Amino acid sequence: MPSSAPTPLPLATLAQELTRFRATRPLVHVLTNEVVQEITANVLLAAGAAPAMIVAQEEVPAFAAIAGAVLINVGTLHSVRLAAMEQAVNAANAAGVPWTLDPVAVGALKYRTDFCRELIRQKPAAIRGNASEIMALAGAGMGGRGVDSTSGSDAALDAARFLAHETGAIVAVTGETDYITDGKTTLATPWGHPIMTQVVGTGCALSALVAAFTAGARNRLDAVASACAMAGMAGQHAQKHSQGPGSFKAAFLDALYHIQPDNLAEISA
Amino acid sequence: MPSSAPTPLPLATLAQELTRFRATRPLVHVLTNEVVQEITANVLLAAGAAPAMIVAQEEVPAFAAIAGAVLINVGTLHSVRLAAMEQAVNAANAAGVPWTLDPVAVGALKYRTDFCRELIRQKPAAIRGNASEIMALAGAGMGGRGVDSTSGSDAALDAARFLAHETGAIVAVTGETDYITDGKTTLATPWGHPIMTQVVGTGCALSALVAAFTAGARNRLDAVASACAMAGMAGQHAQKHSQGPGSFKAAFLDALYHIQPDNLAEISA
Amino acid sequence: MPSSAPTPLPLATLAQELTRFRATRPLVHVLTNEVVQEITANVLLAAGAAPAMIVAQEEVPAFAAIAGAVLINVGTLHSVRLAAMEQAVNAANAAGVPWTLDPVAVGALKYRTDFCRELIRQKPAAIRGNASEIMALAGAGMGGRGVDSTSGSDAALDAARFLAHETGAIVAVTGETDYITDGKTTLATPWGHPIMTQVVGTGCALSALVAAFTAGARNRLDAVASACAMAGMAGQHAQKHSQGPGSFKAAFLDALYHIQPDNLAEISA
Repeated sequence: MPSSAPTPLPLATLAQELTRFRATRPLVHVLTNEVVQEITANVLLAAGAAPAMIVAQEEVPAFAAIAGAVLINVGTLHSVRLAAMEQAVNAANAAGVPWTLDPVAVGALKYRTDFCRELIRQKPAAIRGNASEIMALAGAGMGGRGVDSTSGSDAALDAARFLAHETGAIVAVTGETDYITDGKTTLATPWGHPIMTQVVGTGCALSALVAAFTAGARNRLDAVASACAMAGMAGQHAQKHSQGPGSFKAAFLDALYHIQPDNLAEISA
Repeated sequence: MPSSAPTPLPLATLAQELTRFRATRPLVHVLTNEVVQEITANVLLAAGAAPAMIVAQEEVPAFAAIAGAVLINVGTLHSVRLAAMEQAVNAANAAGVPWTLDPVAVGALKYRTDFCRELIRQKPAAIRGNASEIMALAGAGMGGRGVDSTSGSDAALDAARFLAHETGAIVAVTGETDYITDGKTTLATPWGHPIMTQVVGTGCALSALVAAFTAGARNRLDAVASACAMAGMAGQHAQKHSQGPGSFKAAFLDALYHIQPDNLAEISA
Repeated sequence: MPSSAPTPLPLATLAQELTRFRATRPLVHVLTNEVVQEITANVLLAAGAAPAMIVAQEEVPAFAAIAGAVLINVGTLHSVRLAAMEQAVNAANAAGVPWTLDPVAVGALKYRTDFCRELIRQKPAAIRGNASEIMALAGAGMGGRGVDSTSGSDAALDAARFLAHETGAIVAVTGETDYITDGKTTLATPWGHPIMTQVVGTGCALSALVAAFTAGARNRLDAVASACAMAGMAGQHAQKHSQGPGSFKAAFLDALYHIQPDNLAEISA
């Protein structure tokens, strides 16, 4: 599994992906946790996608099949929602709709860890998590390679490459720097600000944006990296124009709404 | 079914209705979707009503019977919530409490479409939706009249009049201009701004406000139109005082809070 | 049951408690209602705690046992969540983790009233409610003492002392002035602003903050009073820097984030 060192996502690639994304206004079928439904919908709307939270077993299969992309987020997983998620993944796969997994808190809790490990056998298009989630999801497979014993982001990058290789997904491990990998090539995006971790749902909403960018993507690695870059840039810009986590959230949505292919240099400055 | 052309809602009527609404501070029993619960509660509070989200089968019937109005929104309908909604509608009708339906995404999905078509036989006081939802809800009844083949808002207005006539409800079809009809008389309110479609829950919360205005109303047509006008004015005002969808939401709630019978001309300017 | 008159919480005590709280960054297992999940998480994050909403029966017992504190809020109680709450309380008690109850709307609705009266036999660390909730929760036990016949906050204070004595919990009854009592000693905190009642979840989120402050507390009375004081000060400060309930919410979160032991006099001025 040879892999090259991370390289920065070029702004020109982001501009292309953003142009494509805005032109298609993808419909995203969101199955997420109870806490972040509103911010997830608002991030998708502000960025330029169309969210739809459809949860009933009577509706999920038909809707997942016509969506541009599907998001599965296990933050407040319970048995009824789990069954709907399985339906959505099956319907998405049957219809060729890409689906993205956000493995919230996997590793710490066996129920969701078992479920996510089963899910990643179902050909996710993308997986987005923080370092500990990505390491935990990869952990069993990596076995004696000792993920937990090595340090921070390097260990997570190894785990991300392993996961991408095993599942065929683009894996994004986000933190101070975001790494996005297909197992061979790894892109890095440096934007963002630590205040984002003090606002619930910024990570979960990023996963929804990742899903949105996979809709109709020709190059999924570029698409997922562009979603991470867009959110990171908007966050960095918003932090400069706010006074704390409350005003940050409004400024973040405003920035997502105003980012354009021709103002990336300005927003990310 | 003769009907006259739409006429503008007079500001004097809005002022009267707003005075009545603020004086009664209606208690609204809200059964809505997972995504918009917080913004719905905050819109009702800012406008001057008292929201209560009560969902358990052990509590719904007793509470619906003592509420000033009930809202049913099917955005994330599932079987457990559907049963609670049936309880609420039955209890509201038995107690003479007006209830309002928001038929989110009806037409696209059979499960909720069937449910809403059954519900509208239970004497709703009001129905609030966008053009496609109102046309879809009216569609089966209108049969060969060919709603879908005619264009945009005119077709929706015909469908709204038909629905109002068939159900006895005041029907509000909202968009660039809002039309509110009892099947014979139609009022129009021109306020609002397209940015509202980029903030999740503005439409759902408007339906809750419609429900709130039906509580104790002597003239339901004026009451429903006034709710639409109040939200539209607040939205138009907020757009001028914000920089995007994030700051819009805060400004919208602030505007709803500050609208008074004596500053309508200023707010709507 | 002799008890002394309420005394103000000293700022020096608040400073000590805030220092302790920020140093430990407690993990709070939150089982709350559908409406306020996002604001509850954001209040905890802004104040300096780590929220986790874990709801599945497969995960609740294990997680409650490792949390720093547990919150139970019955705002949208239903049978599935009720069972999870019972699991959480049992696991918390077995592990020595303090748990806090927010008895939303108890008194008005029998189902939740019965449940909360059963729960308070399970040794809550704290109970936080408004005057009518605290009086209703104490009501049955106080029997012929006629809580409902006496007036407002004095009656609630008597009920709070009674509840504290009966359950062993610190009881906070919040309103224009907050009273926090262990049944013998009562502290008072005067901060806050009525606009907080026009923003959904400020009370529910305060209960989560109360839970967070009980984690690892040496003096639970000081801890609970400090949570009330912190939220009240932030609210009072935010009201001065906002234009209505929408902008208030952002300013409130910003203020919670910026409160420090060394700027309490300034924030509360």
